[in-house]
Amino acid sequence: MSFIDVPAGSDFPIENLPYGIFSTQDNPQRRAGVAIGNQILDLTTVKHFFTGPELSKNQHVFEQGSLNSFMALGKMAWLEAREMLQKILSKNTPFLRDNEQLKQKAFVKQSEALMHLPADIGDYTDFYSSMYHATNVGIMFRGKENPLLENWKWLPVGYHGRASSVVVSSTPIRRPLGQCKADGVAEPTFGPSRLVDFELEMAFFVGGPPTELGEPVPIENTADRIFGMVLMNDWSARDIQKWEYVPLGPFLGKSFGTTISPWVVPMEALKPFLVENPPQDPSPLRYLRHNDPYTIDIKLAVSIKPDGSTRDYKVCETNFKHLYWTLKQQLAHHTSNGCNVRPGDLMGSGTVSGPEPGSYGSLLELSWRGQKPVQLRESEFVRKFLVDNDEVTLTGYCEDSQKGIRIGFGECRGKLLPANEFSEG
Amino acid sequence: MSFIDVPAGSDFPIENLPYGIFSTQDNPQRRAGVAIGNQILDLTTVKHFFTGPELSKNQHVFEQGSLNSFMALGKMAWLEAREMLQKILSKNTPFLRDNEQLKQKAFVKQSEALMHLPADIGDYTDFYSSMYHATNVGIMFRGKENPLLENWKWLPVGYHGRASSVVVSSTPIRRPLGQCKADGVAEPTFGPSRLVDFELEMAFFVGGPPTELGEPVPIENTADRIFGMVLMNDWSARDIQKWEYVPLGPFLGKSFGTTISPWVVPMEALKPFLVENPPQDPSPLRYLRHNDPYTIDIKLAVSIKPDGSTRDYKVCETNFKHLYWTLKQQLAHHTSNGCNVRPGDLMGSGTVSGPEPGSYGSLLELSWRGQKPVQLRESEFVRKFLVDNDEVTLTGYCEDSQKGIRIGFGECRGKLLPANEFSEG
Repeated sequence: MSFIDVPAGSDFPIENLPYGIFSTQDNPQRRAGVAIGNQILDLTTVKHFFTGPELSKNQHVFEQGSLNSFMALGKMAWLEAREMLQKILSKNTPFLRDNEQLKQKAFVKQSEALMHLPADIGDYTDFYSSMYHATNVGIMFRGKENPLLENWKWLPVGYHGRASSVVVSSTPIRRPLGQCKADGVAEPTFGPSRLVDFELEMAFFVGGPPTELGEPVPIENTADRIFGMVLMNDWSARDIQKWEYVPLGPFLGKSFGTTISPWVVPMEALKPFLVENPPQDPSPLRYLRHNDPYTIDIKLAVSIKPDGSTRDYKVCETNFKHLYWTLKQQLAHHTSNGCNVRPGDLMGSGTVSGPEPGSYGSLLELSWRGQKPVQLRESEFVRKFLVDNDEVTLTGYCEDSQKGIRIGFGECRGKLLPANEFSEG
Repeated sequence: MSFIDVPAGSDFPIENLPYGIFSTQDNPQRRAGVAIGNQILDLTTVKHFFTGPELSKNQHVFEQGSLNSFMALGKMAWLEAREMLQKILSKNTPFLRDNEQLKQKAFVKQSEALMHLPADIGDYTDFYSSMYHATNVGIMFRGKENPLLENWKWLPVGYHGRASSVVVSSTPIRRPLGQCKADGVAEPTFGPSRLVDFELEMAFFVGGPPTELGEPVPIENTADRIFGMVLMNDWSARDIQKWEYVPLGPFLGKSFGTTISPWVVPMEALKPFLVENPPQDPSPLRYLRHNDPYTIDIKLAVSIKPDGSTRDYKVCETNFKHLYWTLKQQLAHHTSNGCNVRPGDLMGSGTVSGPEPGSYGSLLELSWRGQKPVQLRESEFVRKFLVDNDEVTLTGYCEDSQKGIRIGFGECRGKLLPANEFSEG
């Protein structure tokens, strides 16, 4: 327990302690903080407590405008930081609890902070690791006979995404213009996308020092290089995507914006929620094989707040444990060809869909390509795809109801602004 | 003419003046330089000459370890820098010519410098803009009936590439391990790629200040945001690529390494070599339409130096003017959805193939998928795909033989090392 009040249902108890980058009106310098209850512990004010072997010479990492340097230090440093944070935040230790002057400086209300991207993202990769999602999309685009392509169960399919357009929660996203071709017409046209969608995803940040080009990360070592996780909304323009994506994959249908939540939850906080991996048949090739559980039980949901409405209405609920490929397998595969990774690289899961219709992670699937409108729960609102000024919010949390522990991810929120004006002329 | 000797056939006369980042044994600090003849003008030593309205307050950009800040200043600054460089390097002005002490400091032999990546590449995109290349690949993979997909002539198809594995010329590339499935067998296997290839490409660097997310760069403004060009070898593992690429595009078949030449040739130096754009039928949509010539006559070649051999043997020759889509169209398309760009972003052309077999830009096409071995010119060596320790070199230059001017790109060189050992066990 912390001496800082953690309200019931808070995402941020002392068992969580996610890292983020924030600034305040008083102090616009971007700096590292840790969420606890409704507060942020400003790490620049307590850096002198980090006196262990890994961090004593690296206290400056908390003063930087991104978490990259901290991520680069590696797992021993992350564990050391976490242990010290739990110690100084505990209600049983006096270091911070009894130092009124320091406490005054050290805590900032989350409601008074501006959150920034937690890291400079060198490269952003997006996987496609939910079998339910890949199957749904396969049925819609290629028919029921052969929904999963032949490679899907042999390797975690993924692609390189656009890093520049990854933004932090609360950044508005503009409905993209783009080239689309309607079925049955001869020529494409250019204009606002009419099929803008969310994709419910999670993503992890790579940590540890940069790897060398040509040096794979063996699957046995991957856990040491997974720093922590965030929620991610991979906004998608289905009509742009459909016309452009052959043969080189998604491009402008995705790169108009990707939103992540600001708080990076450390893998250590998620450890109690690891569950058995899903059975994989065929058995993966050796470089992808691991037996320790690395599937995570995280309850996920998406809500929409229509323009002028006062609240969010849930549109789907699912669980991160529905992924077929684990994060370890994703990272081992990604580096198996010698591709180098750098601290701060972001790797998305792909849309997390579960087995039942209500657990699908995109409107494409929920409305089955726009064929059946989806009712927002507890409301009269219906959606096939997103409408201008819809505010989309992803949430996620792990729960041990016996112990009364909840490890949450906060919010990944974004409003879809109307398209820019344009003239085709 | 410059007071610095420019040997006949040099890529770097005073009409070129490409920018690069270099260091020396005496001074390991990475800094900006300009190539002239066999020399590098160290810009940190002459920055005080840049006293014009754009650069007088920005002289520090030449002292940084990348060109990003200089690129960010925009076109007026680039023109100002170029004008001053041509002035101080001219044999008709005394500023540098007659200052022996400064000259001593200011010039470094290229043979004594270590070249680095010219920019921190935030995002790397690769297009697919040669119709001959796309048609060849289409015939090989989908048959003669329908070689070009329906979207190809409507938009410059492209995809997001991996930025971390873009390296500068001379960096060795390791043959990747990867998952491949041979035709006619039931299951894939993991091991060294057997079909490693080069791809002859060129790429441009984006300049100007970062754009905002949601703000397209209209085609009328694109020329102000194209800083300069390099040669690029988009190393490709055809067997990995073939098995992984559906439905999300190329991934590990490419991300084991992409090599660029170190000298960024300014667009201003290429202006005299702009030629009429190829006819486009159908006529592009308005957002992709421009009438001014932006196709560039650049002679390109690839050579291979087999292990133990004393020289490079040419394997193909082509011309950059064979591209169907212009750089302006690529950039306008890329940002049409509001995707933001940052100075230092790299955009590749895709493999540059011409109409005749000898002008194809990859071994895949030259050997027609390995069906006919290619003879390296003036040699007994043959290749279907690359062999361990092959050193691949791309070269390119523009030429005005009447005026005796040659604007070259230097070399884009890389050696293919044998794969790492592995056990499938």
